[in-house]
Amino acid sequence: MKVSKLVGVRFKERPADCVIDSHAFSVRGGYVKQVSNGIFSLYAPMKKVTQNIERIIREEMDALDSQEVMFPVVLPGSLWEESGRYQSVGDELLRFKDRNGTPMVLGMTHEEAAVHLARDFGRTYQNYPFSIYQIQTKYRDEARPRAGLIRVREFTMKDAYSFHTSQEDLEQYYDRMANSYYRIFERMGLPDVIAVKSDSGMIGGSVSHEYMLLADCGEDSIVLCDDCGFSANMEAADTIVDNSGCAPMGELTKVHTPGCKTIDEVCHFLGTKVEESCKAVMYQINATDEYVVVFTRGDYEVNETKLTNLLGEKVHPAEVTEESGLVAGFCGPYQITDKCRVIFDKSLEGIENLVCGGNETDYHYTGLNIKRDLGDVEFVDVSKIQDGGICPVCGKKRIRISRGIEAGNIFQLGTKYTDSMKMTYTAEDGTEKTPIMGCYGIGVGRAAACIMEAHHDDYGPIWPITVAPWKVEVCCMRVDDEECKAATDKIYEELQNMGIEVIYDDRDVRAGAMFADADLIGAPVRVTVGPKALKNGEIELCTRDKSVNVKVPKDEIIAETKKLIDQLYADINAKVRDRK
Amino acid sequence: MKVSKLVGVRFKERPADCVIDSHAFSVRGGYVKQVSNGIFSLYAPMKKVTQNIERIIREEMDALDSQEVMFPVVLPGSLWEESGRYQSVGDELLRFKDRNGTPMVLGMTHEEAAVHLARDFGRTYQNYPFSIYQIQTKYRDEARPRAGLIRVREFTMKDAYSFHTSQEDLEQYYDRMANSYYRIFERMGLPDVIAVKSDSGMIGGSVSHEYMLLADCGEDSIVLCDDCGFSANMEAADTIVDNSGCAPMGELTKVHTPGCKTIDEVCHFLGTKVEESCKAVMYQINATDEYVVVFTRGDYEVNETKLTNLLGEKVHPAEVTEESGLVAGFCGPYQITDKCRVIFDKSLEGIENLVCGGNETDYHYTGLNIKRDLGDVEFVDVSKIQDGGICPVCGKKRIRISRGIEAGNIFQLGTKYTDSMKMTYTAEDGTEKTPIMGCYGIGVGRAAACIMEAHHDDYGPIWPITVAPWKVEVCCMRVDDEECKAATDKIYEELQNMGIEVIYDDRDVRAGAMFADADLIGAPVRVTVGPKALKNGEIELCTRDKSVNVKVPKDEIIAETKKLIDQLYADINAKVRDRK
Repeated sequence: MKVSKLVGVRFKERPADCVIDSHAFSVRGGYVKQVSNGIFSLYAPMKKVTQNIERIIREEMDALDSQEVMFPVVLPGSLWEESGRYQSVGDELLRFKDRNGTPMVLGMTHEEAAVHLARDFGRTYQNYPFSIYQIQTKYRDEARPRAGLIRVREFTMKDAYSFHTSQEDLEQYYDRMANSYYRIFERMGLPDVIAVKSDSGMIGGSVSHEYMLLADCGEDSIVLCDDCGFSANMEAADTIVDNSGCAPMGELTKVHTPGCKTIDEVCHFLGTKVEESCKAVMYQINATDEYVVVFTRGDYEVNETKLTNLLGEKVHPAEVTEESGLVAGFCGPYQITDKCRVIFDKSLEGIENLVCGGNETDYHYTGLNIKRDLGDVEFVDVSKIQDGGICPVCGKKRIRISRGIEAGNIFQLGTKYTDSMKMTYTAEDGTEKTPIMGCYGIGVGRAAACIMEAHHDDYGPIWPITVAPWKVEVCCMRVDDEECKAATDKIYEELQNMGIEVIYDDRDVRAGAMFADADLIGAPVRVTVGPKALKNGEIELCTRDKSVNVKVPKDEIIAETKKLIDQLYADINAKVRDRK
Repeated sequence: MKVSKLVGVRFKERPADCVIDSHAFSVRGGYVKQVSNGIFSLYAPMKKVTQNIERIIREEMDALDSQEVMFPVVLPGSLWEESGRYQSVGDELLRFKDRNGTPMVLGMTHEEAAVHLARDFGRTYQNYPFSIYQIQTKYRDEARPRAGLIRVREFTMKDAYSFHTSQEDLEQYYDRMANSYYRIFERMGLPDVIAVKSDSGMIGGSVSHEYMLLADCGEDSIVLCDDCGFSANMEAADTIVDNSGCAPMGELTKVHTPGCKTIDEVCHFLGTKVEESCKAVMYQINATDEYVVVFTRGDYEVNETKLTNLLGEKVHPAEVTEESGLVAGFCGPYQITDKCRVIFDKSLEGIENLVCGGNETDYHYTGLNIKRDLGDVEFVDVSKIQDGGICPVCGKKRIRISRGIEAGNIFQLGTKYTDSMKMTYTAEDGTEKTPIMGCYGIGVGRAAACIMEAHHDDYGPIWPITVAPWKVEVCCMRVDDEECKAATDKIYEELQNMGIEVIYDDRDVRAGAMFADADLIGAPVRVTVGPKALKNGEIELCTRDKSVNVKVPKDEIIAETKKLIDQLYADINAKVRDRK
């Protein structure tokens, strides 16, 4: 491929709407073009990167005896009704009617389609276990697409589905898949992706893990223990709070706290510790508008996913009306209206002497003791674990909160879909049983963005050799110099004949412009042919990451380039092998 | 791959709803499963076939310097408004609104997206010509999907778009693409696909060709001249009618024709020739309901595509009301109401003495002479060419009408999209000009179905080696015989180690069931290991099409299998080379 012919435009200025680096380079480097909010066309370089990622994924899936199939993008609503998700999933499921008025959806995941395809083959125990996967376009009607290829509406995803006759068999395959995921990310140049325990959300099931690339620009919060290595996403990390050593029981007293609406204002006004206060957070259940008041320790935050899982209902922040009986800013658990549901977070457990709202404007209580004043209440975990908090596994105060980008996920689904969709098999003993499922996803475009986030400098992406659109860029510094041009042509041809993917900058442009474009194109190896060095019989060979930059005798340039490429592959493969 | 593990179910009975063979084998052979009307999931064997087809297409597109990109499936309606197609295309364009109420469509072709992606790069004449393509899922909301993978709603298609600065340059590239298309079809085992001149329909442009597989089950009518080789689809073939030698002029006479509503009834009643009658076919324009009456020779049929192209409007069969002034069954051109538009087909030109409707119930005219009785009328070509008719190129009466399946199409688009979407470039002389476009499509799934139609027997598909999901099937006739099993295992392993795609029937089933499944799986080569022959040191080697069926010494089976595979590739490649 010649740069002069490469469809796409590269430019210098960072677009104003690009908050994260991978988004900026995707646009500046001629990798993608936005067609609609969160919907992109891919230019040839990004298409090549995604194809390379897909090849790695295919090889690893095939090695797990998963069979590549293809499900439709457009699915009948009736199929999603079988599983119950037609109703249960929110607006991110794009629903529409075809010309005959039949309800259809755009597939965002394909559990239903997988059960539909596997149901016949899965009629007998002898055919288990088995696994199928596809790499296909999906659509998720995100309310707020952002960050380039990280959170889009239309995306290409590998989704695999496995079917088992026992939980043990599922777990065994799940572990193999988990190991395979590490290999996939390592092979694409992301050895630092970590698996974290996660909440299963709308996919369902009990056990699930997310594969996270740690990155400050990530939109997920990840909980890590620096001592024992525990990791989970925020929703899946149990919050443990140590309230030993707080003040002893006092007397319940109503105090005047004029204008103190936040817990910080109250504690400041009263001169008490926020850690010994009780904060109210008010919600309403989406379906019924019923009020739910969550009480947490003053310095803790409610995790809405934990709350949703507890309630089995989606919630939204409450709109406090007069009829509700709630007093915004002064809500407390003592003598609260009985028109709402009350939840006590575990962070309050063990505090003897609390400040809390007085359920009357400008009044709070001091000296609240939950057991004495409210009786036996149940404490549940609905708050976010804190940076510096207690590890739920080793119990040490070594929790660190990081940001991450979710690059993949795996789920043990149990029988959620097979049950609702009535998939059964005849077991060895002749009885009818329900198979157990797992599902496993990797977003291809998001993986490409993750690689860009993990591998770039100020000037552009530094593609790992395994996924690079071109392995080598050959630059001719003077196309008007016959000797220089001929030498570069020859290198281009010879490398191509060796089966190496090469991009050739054959344009008559200044060195600065050529190198700026080479940085955006991000080929891991660059061969620069300049007339001066050539006169001395030398050609420049360097890597995109600047770790290698040497002059090579011109007769050795092909061999040296090949050697450098092989080394870059070996570096990545070494990491993959180490893991196994 | 082992047959015992192959997800999918094969069965013997032809499904009642399968009219054509490829549809029946697709279902019976475990290739596809219908998810909704015209929407299919693909099992692994069909996924492999389509991947092989895609690989051939990719190689040929890359050889034409076309760059693989990817456009979205979901496109904003605003993009289609730029070209005017948001309004002009019918219900087959699936329109919907996203969660924010923005009008979106599902891409059925991607001319708009191609212009959107190429617009920036195409700003200067120096970057021309260039070409981009994608292989991606598309959706067309067909009213009546049918024939399995032939006419579906969701499909995978290769669509390429080229951009040029002159018509000559477009024509040159168009010719290269045309040649490339022959190579693509030949390489996938369809050497008999022919290119026919076609009507451009909703894609637009002037010159276009369709690539047709001649097949009795095809839904397209193709016009072929057995003398000069002229070919076109029905819409694109000029109808030439020779009316020399018909009866001389007579007197215009109104005659009573009680109950004679069809032209055949009238001619039979009056004892006149159908070839000297004037038939009325009544339409209404969709947009305005205006009546259009087309008069043709009694034995000719109106071609609605020709009529639509002439009118620039879509039409539907007329609903004749009293106010229309038309008399159904007795409509004629003489003294017809002036509330309708009248069109005379060329098939009437030169007839001196016609029978036609009397515009009064139970009355016709005899002796109509158009020039004498109606004055100078314009004759236009809106009828279908007939089997045995006159070739518009060589003039001989050698026209044959065949049925065909459209496997691909190519269009010279001109500036239809670049103009409406305001794509311009700065020409060498500094002026702003509009680029000229071509577009080129091949349906991947339909190609697979075409291959099945062209290559099957009563028992299943006979896959050409180039696209076969597996090149060899190895059958172990007695898995309970240790020696037989070990020998088959070894062959399976050795062939795989040679990089050959093998499927291994390792099941404990009767020979009949195993061979029936092998026929449905359709691997072009089969190795059958039976305990008896093995005792004699022999293994059976045969082709799926039965042209080869030999016993081979067991030590030579690998070499002989490889030789047979190579020969099958050579047979196909020879046809490709011959064409060039």
